[in-house]
Formats: sequence, C-alpha cells, structure tokens
Amino acid sequence: MPDIDRLGRLQAQLRDFAAQRDWDQFHTPKNLAMALAAEAGELVEPFQWLTPEQSARLPECTWAEVELEAADVLLYLLRLCDKLGIDLVAAGEKKLKLNAQRYPIDRVRGKALKHDRL
Amino acid sequence: MPDIDRLGRLQAQLRDFAAQRDWDQFHTPKNLAMALAAEAGELVEPFQWLTPEQSARLPECTWAEVELEAADVLLYLLRLCDKLGIDLVAAGEKKLKLNAQRYPIDRVRGKALKHDRL
Amino acid sequence: MPDIDRLGRLQAQLRDFAAQRDWDQFHTPKNLAMALAAEAGELVEPFQWLTPEQSARLPECTWAEVELEAADVLLYLLRLCDKLGIDLVAAGEKKLKLNAQRYPIDRVRGKALKHDRL
Amino acid sequence: MPDIDRLGRLQAQLRDFAAQRDWDQFHTPKNLAMALAAEAGELVEPFQWLTPEQSARLPECTWAEVELEAADVLLYLLRLCDKLGIDLVAAGEKKLKLNAQRYPIDRVRGKALKHDRL
Repeated sequence: MPDIDRLGRLQAQLRDFAAQRDWDQFHTPKNLAMALAAEAGELVEPFQWLTPEQSARLPECTWAEVELEAADVLLYLLRLCDKLGIDLVAAGEKKLKLNAQRYPIDRVRGKALKHDRL
Repeated sequence: MPDIDRLGRLQAQLRDFAAQRDWDQFHTPKNLAMALAAEAGELVEPFQWLTPEQSARLPECTWAEVELEAADVLLYLLRLCDKLGIDLVAAGEKKLKLNAQRYPIDRVRGKALKHDRL
Repeated sequence: MPDIDRLGRLQAQLRDFAAQRDWDQFHTPKNLAMALAAEAGELVEPFQWLTPEQSARLPECTWAEVELEAADVLLYLLRLCDKLGIDLVAAGEKKLKLNAQRYPIDRVRGKALKHDRL
Repeated sequence: MPDIDRLGRLQAQLRDFAAQRDWDQFHTPKNLAMALAAEAGELVEPFQWLTPEQSARLPECTWAEVELEAADVLLYLLRLCDKLGIDLVAAGEKKLKLNAQRYPIDRVRGKALKHDRL
C-alpha cells in the first residue's frame, strides 16, 4: 500500500483510537507536545552510556526497544499534527529545503555548525 | 505522489544531504537521538506557557514555528531510523497494535492511566 | 548543616559513587547531558495528561514520583557541572540577574513572552 | 554565605521575580516541568555533534553556553520544587541512597546497566 495511505491510515487509526477511549479531552496540542518530549527522553535513554560506535551496532534487545520508542515519537507527532492541521511530510520537505539554503555544501562540508554561526 | 514514495524520497534526500556535507561522521544513532531530543525540547517550548485551550488555537506565527519544529523532529527520526534499519511506519503500526492490547477500550475509557497502572 | 556543605557534600558523594563503580568512563559531559535530558522526560511524563490545576494538587504517589525524578535531574546536573568545573549555584545567580535585565518588570507584567519578542 | 542560604535565597528570589511580573499564573507545576524539559533540550544541543572527548574539553564559548543552560535547568527545578513543596537537596540525598542500594558496587563495577536489568 502506498505510504500516504499508510501514514494517513495510521493517523486516522490514531484518531479512532483516541475517540473510542474518549481521550480527545487529554489530547490538546500542549499535552501531546509534552508526551512527545517524554518519549524523546525514552528514545535517548538506551543510547546514553554507549560509545558512538556501540550506538551503531545495537544488540537486538536494545534495537527493539529503540524501534518502539521511535514509534512512540512518530505516533505523538502524527497526533499533534492531526490536531493542528499540519501536513507532517510536507513540513519535512519544506524544512529540508530550508536547511539546504542554510547549510550550503561548500561552507559546511565536514563541519557541524549551527547556521547562525557559519 | 504516494506517500511511501514521499517519505522514502525524503529519507533518501536526507541521506544525500548528509553525504554531500560529509556529515555521516556526526550522524551516529547516539548523536541523532540527542539531536531529536533537542528538537523535541524546541517543540515543547512554544506551548509551555499556553493554556490547553490556547494550545488548540495557535496564532499563525506560533503555528508556523510548531510546523518547523515538528518537521525537525521528523527529519531526525527518519535519519535515525535510516541509520538503524528501522522501518518507521511499520514500527508505528506495530506500536499502535500493542497499545490497543495494553489499553482495552472498556477499561480506559475517559481515563489517562499508564498501562502498568490499570 | 548549611547547604553549601550539603550541595557540595552531595556532589562529592556523587563523585565517590561513580569512582567506586568505575563509572567515570561513562560520565563524559556529553553522556551526562543525555542522561539529564532522559530524566527531564521522566519528570514531564507524570504531568502530561493533567490539567494545570491538577498539576498543582498532585496525589501523594505522583508527588513522590515527581520528587524522585526532580532528584535525578539534580544529581545529573551536579555531576555534569562537577565534570565541567561549573559552579551551579553561582551560575543560577548569574542567570537570574541576566533574566532581570531581559525581562523588565514594567514591560512583561502578566505576559509570557520570550525576551527576543518583547 | 553558606549554600542553604544561597540556594534558599535563590529560590526566594525566583519567587519574588515571578510575583513582581505576575507570572505565577503561568508557573503551574505542569508548565514548569515543560519549561525544564525545553531547557534540558537546550543543554543537550551544544553536545550533540561532539565526540565524548570533545565534550570534556569545551571551547570557552560553548562552556559559557552550557553554564547558562545548566543554570536555566536549575532555576526551573528550584521553582518547580518550590511550587510543589519538595526539598530539592533532601530529595537528591534520598535518591542517592536509593541508587546505592540499587547499584551494589560489586555487581555494577564498570558496567552501565539499569537496575532492573542487573
């Protein structure tokens, strides 16, 4: 199934999931942003004591944990965007174009600098 | 264009974006998880002093800020999953199924409880 | 016991705690900042579905959870500052003075705006 | 001046700072936890592309940035604890004792494992 259907279907399923549980009362954009931040914290946690090299070769159980935490971030991100009428993929495409302008290849090659410090 | 193409294309564009800038050296899963957490913090920031009601009716400039911060979270999430070989949408679908088991409708209706406290 | 002794003693105890466990190899500033972010996520989590009013009248079990998460943030903050040679309390005093300049009483009374938007 | 006075004085100054600006309306524990998470994200950001080694030898400008972000985390942590009636230093002492029980020296030496996986 094409992914607009998959992402859109997932977003619609999240909407139903919340409606069936009468959870829309909790799902204000403010609360969803908090929940996303909490999940981002859980996504960071398995990496915190790893070397950069170890983080690229995760043991299976850690990989599976990261997969679920990444999923949680996606679910809250989709839900937040649904509530705010943001087209998430279009926003990503727009931001990537902005990043291409902010970080010209010849000025940032091999350097990790913020655009306001170039 | 169907969205699997759009998401997959965005992920491929991110790969090229990093390669052209010789940024793969910085994009370890550990570092990408940190960057995602930093962006999640920026996504929380515009909501922190708003009432729940205000957060649902954002002024245009705040909405546009949230759109870009949500995009940043998506971009790092796609990049992290690319580096780890995680299929992000499939992970989201799997997690939603797990949530449906953990939060049976008749036990959680109208209640915001963690599954381990039901 | 005066608190400089208490905070300084706590910081020294954390140093011993890590040394006894041979954990200094893990306690780079980078890793400690990650751990702090993960704990900040855990501190947010108990509040995410609460109304602002509910958050001010926590049930005892939630209060106790928040107390421990706040403690975790403090411990990593002390440890990070110890590793970097930052005097945490002096830094707080300095930042509060800066905030007093950035947010003049007569310009911000009753308004929650960032200083760069005043 | 002993630090209990310094920390307690800083907490009292924060209370006055908010009262003078009529900001108590914004400073619910929920909002303060969000603000702390946003600051934790800002504290992570300067470290995200650094190697562990680089993070231990920060350039002066990055060090100064980290000092201010650490201060922001402290200020919101003090404010949150003030609002909830949590004694922050006592909480830290209590948590360190709990950690000593959870992580016995002879079982965790040289290992970075969560207590529930020992």
